[in-house]
Amino acid sequence: MNATIPVTVLGATGTVGQRFVRRLVRHPLFHIEHLAASERSAGKTYAEACEWRLGGEAYGGLASKRLVAADPAHAMAPIVFSALDSGPAREIEPQFAAAGANLFSNASAFRMEPDVPLLVPEVNPSHLDILRLQRERRGYTGSISTNPNCTTTILVMALAPLHTRFGVEALVMSSLQAVSGAGYPGVPSLDILGNVIPHIAGEEEKVEVESKKLLGRLGVQGAELADFAASAACHRVPVLEGHTLAVSVRLCGAPSPADVRETLAQWRGLAREWELASAPKKPLVLHDAPNRPQPRLDVDDAEGMAVHVGRIRACPLLGIKFAVLGHNTERGAAGGSILNAELALARGSLQR
Amino acid sequence: MNATIPVTVLGATGTVGQRFVRRLVRHPLFHIEHLAASERSAGKTYAEACEWRLGGEAYGGLASKRLVAADPAHAMAPIVFSALDSGPAREIEPQFAAAGANLFSNASAFRMEPDVPLLVPEVNPSHLDILRLQRERRGYTGSISTNPNCTTTILVMALAPLHTRFGVEALVMSSLQAVSGAGYPGVPSLDILGNVIPHIAGEEEKVEVESKKLLGRLGVQGAELADFAASAACHRVPVLEGHTLAVSVRLCGAPSPADVRETLAQWRGLAREWELASAPKKPLVLHDAPNRPQPRLDVDDAEGMAVHVGRIRACPLLGIKFAVLGHNTERGAAGGSILNAELALARGSLQR
Amino acid sequence: MNATIPVTVLGATGTVGQRFVRRLVRHPLFHIEHLAASERSAGKTYAEACEWRLGGEAYGGLASKRLVAADPAHAMAPIVFSALDSGPAREIEPQFAAAGANLFSNASAFRMEPDVPLLVPEVNPSHLDILRLQRERRGYTGSISTNPNCTTTILVMALAPLHTRFGVEALVMSSLQAVSGAGYPGVPSLDILGNVIPHIAGEEEKVEVESKKLLGRLGVQGAELADFAASAACHRVPVLEGHTLAVSVRLCGAPSPADVRETLAQWRGLAREWELASAPKKPLVLHDAPNRPQPRLDVDDAEGMAVHVGRIRACPLLGIKFAVLGHNTERGAAGGSILNAELALARGSLQR
Amino acid sequence: MNATIPVTVLGATGTVGQRFVRRLVRHPLFHIEHLAASERSAGKTYAEACEWRLGGEAYGGLASKRLVAADPAHAMAPIVFSALDSGPAREIEPQFAAAGANLFSNASAFRMEPDVPLLVPEVNPSHLDILRLQRERRGYTGSISTNPNCTTTILVMALAPLHTRFGVEALVMSSLQAVSGAGYPGVPSLDILGNVIPHIAGEEEKVEVESKKLLGRLGVQGAELADFAASAACHRVPVLEGHTLAVSVRLCGAPSPADVRETLAQWRGLAREWELASAPKKPLVLHDAPNRPQPRLDVDDAEGMAVHVGRIRACPLLGIKFAVLGHNTERGAAGGSILNAELALARGSLQR
Repeated sequence: MNATIPVTVLGATGTVGQRFVRRLVRHPLFHIEHLAASERSAGKTYAEACEWRLGGEAYGGLASKRLVAADPAHAMAPIVFSALDSGPAREIEPQFAAAGANLFSNASAFRMEPDVPLLVPEVNPSHLDILRLQRERRGYTGSISTNPNCTTTILVMALAPLHTRFGVEALVMSSLQAVSGAGYPGVPSLDILGNVIPHIAGEEEKVEVESKKLLGRLGVQGAELADFAASAACHRVPVLEGHTLAVSVRLCGAPSPADVRETLAQWRGLAREWELASAPKKPLVLHDAPNRPQPRLDVDDAEGMAVHVGRIRACPLLGIKFAVLGHNTERGAAGGSILNAELALARGSLQR
Repeated sequence: MNATIPVTVLGATGTVGQRFVRRLVRHPLFHIEHLAASERSAGKTYAEACEWRLGGEAYGGLASKRLVAADPAHAMAPIVFSALDSGPAREIEPQFAAAGANLFSNASAFRMEPDVPLLVPEVNPSHLDILRLQRERRGYTGSISTNPNCTTTILVMALAPLHTRFGVEALVMSSLQAVSGAGYPGVPSLDILGNVIPHIAGEEEKVEVESKKLLGRLGVQGAELADFAASAACHRVPVLEGHTLAVSVRLCGAPSPADVRETLAQWRGLAREWELASAPKKPLVLHDAPNRPQPRLDVDDAEGMAVHVGRIRACPLLGIKFAVLGHNTERGAAGGSILNAELALARGSLQR
Repeated sequence: MNATIPVTVLGATGTVGQRFVRRLVRHPLFHIEHLAASERSAGKTYAEACEWRLGGEAYGGLASKRLVAADPAHAMAPIVFSALDSGPAREIEPQFAAAGANLFSNASAFRMEPDVPLLVPEVNPSHLDILRLQRERRGYTGSISTNPNCTTTILVMALAPLHTRFGVEALVMSSLQAVSGAGYPGVPSLDILGNVIPHIAGEEEKVEVESKKLLGRLGVQGAELADFAASAACHRVPVLEGHTLAVSVRLCGAPSPADVRETLAQWRGLAREWELASAPKKPLVLHDAPNRPQPRLDVDDAEGMAVHVGRIRACPLLGIKFAVLGHNTERGAAGGSILNAELALARGSLQR
Repeated sequence: MNATIPVTVLGATGTVGQRFVRRLVRHPLFHIEHLAASERSAGKTYAEACEWRLGGEAYGGLASKRLVAADPAHAMAPIVFSALDSGPAREIEPQFAAAGANLFSNASAFRMEPDVPLLVPEVNPSHLDILRLQRERRGYTGSISTNPNCTTTILVMALAPLHTRFGVEALVMSSLQAVSGAGYPGVPSLDILGNVIPHIAGEEEKVEVESKKLLGRLGVQGAELADFAASAACHRVPVLEGHTLAVSVRLCGAPSPADVRETLAQWRGLAREWELASAPKKPLVLHDAPNRPQPRLDVDDAEGMAVHVGRIRACPLLGIKFAVLGHNTERGAAGGSILNAELALARGSLQR
């Protein structure tokens, strides 16, 4: 029989929370037990507490479901997804882990803790093993696992096969990021219509350090940072969904663009064996047209879970450069977090 | 008394041509003698031949002026500005130079010829001396001088003071470019609304090589390319005017961000002594707010002739990174070309 | 057995043509036999002849299919869909009708001829009977049927139930139209980014007269125009897909907004009995939120075939006003035309 | 000598407040004595209290000026401009009027009170006479005068000459409004990028009633509403500045489009005799190109104080229709309010 696992969504009223809901109501393994939100919203129906901002069925069909408070007394489930902001996450997430929940967080609060896995299933599934250390140290009966910042997720999907085969020595990345990354209400239209904002607070630092944790090895003290120089410059642009990255990278052995293209084209990712429900068949989609990938044309591919690479060519300075595109609020947020839970389930890493 | 010099605008009906006209009708030293366009438009009035697409007085007040054909027989003047596309430029511009015109071209046709100066007055005014070589070799009684590609112009304005003081060793640049750079009709709205196009044909190559010519020395055979590695990634974004650049640069001696900031802040450019009419008082405007410069807020400063620098900070890979912004069709096209003519006039380099 | 009917798409390389292809490759009753284009493209593969501009599988999976010339000698099929521009349509469409094809045209060329049906299946399916007159008069063994201008289609979907129940006496409509309505390359980004263009050539006239033909009766000489005053003001706005209409209407008997709402909510359209494959279950979707419908949130509903109505309220001048939204290139073009063919097939109006 | 009059700006940190400041720092008759803001901002410098969001010199050169609280004890001046929101305006504005200030308000709080003038100088300067009634009734030693809602201001500028010459009997107006009308942060980019929102809370009601007050007569009880039916449908579109209106109007005597055009072209407005500093020479600019006026090309004309009319043509229902464009935050807000103060000064209506 196929009983699905009950899950909770923390922060269900926000834009990422809504994406969690939309994915989970049609998920083959999970069903939504609790929608949790702030004290202010608890007790209201989902439709009373927020305005649905996505396409598809409004409120994922849960318009009349009552929201509960975001604490284990009201919102406990075996699997808990967190779309909380970083501040509340720091306080609330450990309560769920201590109470026995397997929590998968999109927040940045604990990403860089050595005993907290920062995961992209195709890239570093073995990092789930850090949970043993986490439970030892923190005394959790449950756990906290995290997915990276949206830009980092998209970046490491393209770097991982190159790091595995050649080794990344240095990289420069410039991003053109969608407004959805700032949540709702997020970026005022007066700021971004016909404009570029050359700064996103904290984003460059996150990309530079999180990418090293994702591509790093496991040590006895948890994840170790990979040893390469990374430099990011992040921009907000008037795009709705999809972050575009310009990447220049120096690889060991100085492979040719053709070598790089072949490596990326053949890569199927380290999560393939488990056939995770939300994993795209091809984690990387390669484009040969010189003007692709483009956010508006490509970002929804594979329900927003594929990452796109194009314009692989020689970089006069670092050897190789290319363009990367991914869906920042699906692959880079809700979808990525759900994929992590699927991985944990498949690998038997869930605490029951 | 100060009689102004008659000038011709070749390609007066296009978007850059219109900007030439708008600047020249209020210019203190020049007056428009001829507006030249394709055979098809010759004989029509300016208003009949094109639709005026700029703010300010329509057609610069020259709506009823008759267009002439773009050849020396009909359009000769001591100074000729060319807003021609590269193909026609290759054929037509030498005819004017041979006939004695001092031609200042925005086209790419001859930019990289060793005996053709590629000029930004604040950056390399001495390159005008190449004209002696050009006249010798080509037998022109006039001359051809060029301004760089719009992105290159904006980039080298920020690099020049650093190259002079420290020496540029390597650079990576990613651009977010306005649609006006593609002329009219240019980029279809179906392609760019809410989107990013990660490719502009030929642009990266131009930036990589033109920047080396601008920062290179004069040799006996003309301009020599500066010796540094440069890598560009160019993107079209839904912005009307203003190219934003993310620059990472390695400088000799590894100066600090504070050193770089001071160097840029103090720079007044090599054209200062001549007090050129179109030169901004401060060629570089420095921004300390972390979210500046922004195209919509800053690009029109100093009638589009200033270049803006912000976010000067450490680059984990190359040492220094910063953001640059400039007006692509003013400083990067019409205004830049007129400034070159003002320099030539001030330095006595015009052939009479 | 369920053999599908072979069809031809004329003008397959344009934006509407691509939408025809995307709908037809998954159609339960039709299959694409010929893709026809201009002489210039004939002989090329579909991928060679144009760039695919839609989401979903590129070229509908027909990338390597050879295009044929748009004449009956090369492109004949029992059903022919025309995405031609009006000029070529006027010449080419009659050739197919004369050769025996049942042609369904999105072009404006013949829409207002009295012996040519102008059809929206939910609105005036009986107008197909005009084909008898057409065959008599023109000697066609096939036929020409047309769908209205995109704006008109969307408008009459909301007017039809009101005209049936109350009678339309007068209407004023102001439209905010998407750029996709102008085809490709269509509206230059320099014209429309952050802007409104208060004019679309010929559009207002089409809306004013076509809406009267659609809501008119059949007479012995063909369709008669309904007798009401209609006034349209059409604007282009920076939206990709979806025309929004502000409609004020005077109805016989001055019904209340509640009466109007109920009438629209209960309407299922006159095509319901045939269960046409492309017809939405609910042809009109009613919105009660004051800020809906919105193109970006609602236009893709029911694969672009539903029409949305909101903000039904009293008009101080005409009695009733409301907002309407529809997909201009699906319901208003390719989808509408295919729906007409489904109707003709279901009603037995196809010439075999 | 011409000493300028000290003025206060209430609500100086908002987007309209900043526009007041930008206009007033270069005003020939006024100088800024106080910048007033909420309690929270009082005591801070202007630069500390807000981010400057306009072009031109940041903070109008008053970056280091200290803000004061918005009450007469701290912010009194002979002339006070109010950019307050309606709620605070209702409370604060009467305090200044009672204390003797001549207050000119952009807020809606008192616009429809019979003893408060609702003014556009070119349209109804005589309405200033209502102030006598106001002082009598309310015991103010100062006064409150208001300018209309931005959309109404733009509309009545085009209606006034027609109402004077022919008489307006009925009108339908549909608006396409810029995001700046919603203040800052205002409309979220996630809501409006590539979208239309067919609703602006309270806007339609304001336009329908305020336009009747502006075009109404003075009676013994103050302004009387003009007697015509008006119907508005208001939309938000992704435009930065400038509201575009589609107007259909029934006029007494059914004048032709040519008559209407001539009437509008000859109109100079009722404020002409006083040569007000902020009044444009031509209050209405007529456009004959079928695709004009357009917000991005026309709205800044005459420093945003001109109103543009185009596409004058027959309306099949009401007789005449045309397009109108105006600057919503200049003519429709800050500039309009300052113009009212200039009128009061010129007419001798200021209380001293």
